[in-house]
Amino acid sequence: MENLRFDGKDLFIIDQTLLPNDEKWVKIDTCESAYNAIKTLMVRGAPAIGIFAGYCMAIFSNGNDIYKLKKFLDSSRPTAVNLALATQRIVDAYENQKSLIDEAIAIHNEDIEMCRKISEYGLSLLNDGDGILTHCNAGELATSRYGTGLGPLILGKEKGYTFHVYCDETRPLLQGARLTSYELEKAGIDTTLICDNMAGYMMQQGKINAVLVGCDRVAANGDVANKIGTSSVAVLADYYNIPFYVLGPHSTVDFNCKSGNDIVIEMRDGDEIKKKYFEKPTALECTKCLNPAFDVTDNKLITAIITDKGIIKQPYSKTLKEILK
Amino acid sequence: MENLRFDGKDLFIIDQTLLPNDEKWVKIDTCESAYNAIKTLMVRGAPAIGIFAGYCMAIFSNGNDIYKLKKFLDSSRPTAVNLALATQRIVDAYENQKSLIDEAIAIHNEDIEMCRKISEYGLSLLNDGDGILTHCNAGELATSRYGTGLGPLILGKEKGYTFHVYCDETRPLLQGARLTSYELEKAGIDTTLICDNMAGYMMQQGKINAVLVGCDRVAANGDVANKIGTSSVAVLADYYNIPFYVLGPHSTVDFNCKSGNDIVIEMRDGDEIKKKYFEKPTALECTKCLNPAFDVTDNKLITAIITDKGIIKQPYSKTLKEILK
Repeated sequence: MENLRFDGKDLFIIDQTLLPNDEKWVKIDTCESAYNAIKTLMVRGAPAIGIFAGYCMAIFSNGNDIYKLKKFLDSSRPTAVNLALATQRIVDAYENQKSLIDEAIAIHNEDIEMCRKISEYGLSLLNDGDGILTHCNAGELATSRYGTGLGPLILGKEKGYTFHVYCDETRPLLQGARLTSYELEKAGIDTTLICDNMAGYMMQQGKINAVLVGCDRVAANGDVANKIGTSSVAVLADYYNIPFYVLGPHSTVDFNCKSGNDIVIEMRDGDEIKKKYFEKPTALECTKCLNPAFDVTDNKLITAIITDKGIIKQPYSKTLKEILK
Repeated sequence: MENLRFDGKDLFIIDQTLLPNDEKWVKIDTCESAYNAIKTLMVRGAPAIGIFAGYCMAIFSNGNDIYKLKKFLDSSRPTAVNLALATQRIVDAYENQKSLIDEAIAIHNEDIEMCRKISEYGLSLLNDGDGILTHCNAGELATSRYGTGLGPLILGKEKGYTFHVYCDETRPLLQGARLTSYELEKAGIDTTLICDNMAGYMMQQGKINAVLVGCDRVAANGDVANKIGTSSVAVLADYYNIPFYVLGPHSTVDFNCKSGNDIVIEMRDGDEIKKKYFEKPTALECTKCLNPAFDVTDNKLITAIITDKGIIKQPYSKTLKEILK
């Protein structure tokens, strides 16, 4: 399930906004088209954005001011830490007169290796036959290979595990329906799509043994910013005594961010709620919508944060530093 | 916000399946069109179905076998208790040689009176300026006037209260978007539409002072069956220490039903999740969906059950009997 192809010269991405109905590959040939691809979520998922931005920096810096280019690309998705980290790595390579393309390929390969490690750590916490709840998409489309949140499921499938996965559709942009259920079907994993408001019912019915989610940013105290709805799933998992696992690269932990209070939540256009994807508007034109893209999950609701450097548990203020710094 | 008009001769209903984009009034002039109106959800909400069926029985019994007519209308929505109760009242009036139209009007007026009482009790628990979360639709479209779940808001507006209402869109059938936000806008109440998975975020941000929901059935121990997602909202409200109020007519309490375990949850077609309302399917044709229409909220998560006979609090096994039996 590739999301990006670089043939040594040209860069292509699969337009994730068109999945699952169309698998359309788009050539990215200007920095404006790169910016728009991130902005409009054609490429999405923190690691995938980083990998993509790395290639874009390497390709489009030729003849351009690399510092302006970095600033421009970074502004396409201000919450995405990996984006700024990746563009900085290309700037560093430039300043050290190294090959920018090699650096971009290195970012890509490191992500594959990192996902594999996360997947192995995650899989060690699951049992064959488990029912798993997912929210949003943190699979191969959002990363490189295996994914983070979905990594243990894809790796587990390779190793002969059977999982029963319930995917929250993840309103308003439906990444759970369009991307997660799609990826899991393609991987041959038993998949059931549910609406976000059905997750609690599935837990109540005893169908869920663990929750796996990705993360957009982890604060130094273990608070986690991730797709809107994640914190509600964590509250429900806590209520029903189900382990709630957050999976992501160690670079997602931002030690400059003390707690979730320091994380600014991106507010998106309300029409994503009442118009996007629908045949007809679901509410009157005059009706306001509030559309926060992320929320913050309190660290005390998180059973473990699973990174490529290991499985980290409470007290996060201490353990995150010890293991990652 | 009327859903039904009877001018002494002809019966009209607003086609609720077309809201909020079209306000189309439909004349119901045959018992077949009455049957279809219930079956296809043009008229919906337990009390509204009862009122509608009362008028239909009164009008169409003329020249028809009233017992066959009752059986026919009852079969349009077999789970709706209010439907069979209303048609029986018209049969009783017929057997006692009373005016059938007067009986239908009485059913209608009793519902208005009942909603008004629920609304007054509910309003006594709210404060001017409160932020309110709603799930699904229990307003005037589902009843007669005021509604049950929304009643305190509509009545409060009449009395000069200002509320800030956040409506869960309520997937998969979007009753919160299509009906609740529409009704509240029409009533001039400050309304914000959110996705179901944003309710927890709104609570975390301190925007919600109380949750108001309707109910489809209340068990003798206070467990409540209501639209899917209700139980998750209750868990969240509990976690964030926000009062969670269930509103409904006292007839919704079913003393033959000991607890929520006795309530069978209706499973609906999975295409409602991945196809209905959307321009394109949100997942692959092969992807399974699970679509429970209701869930059961544990009585210990419910701050109060508000009926036309008063505000009822824990211990429900005792108080429901005392106040309602």
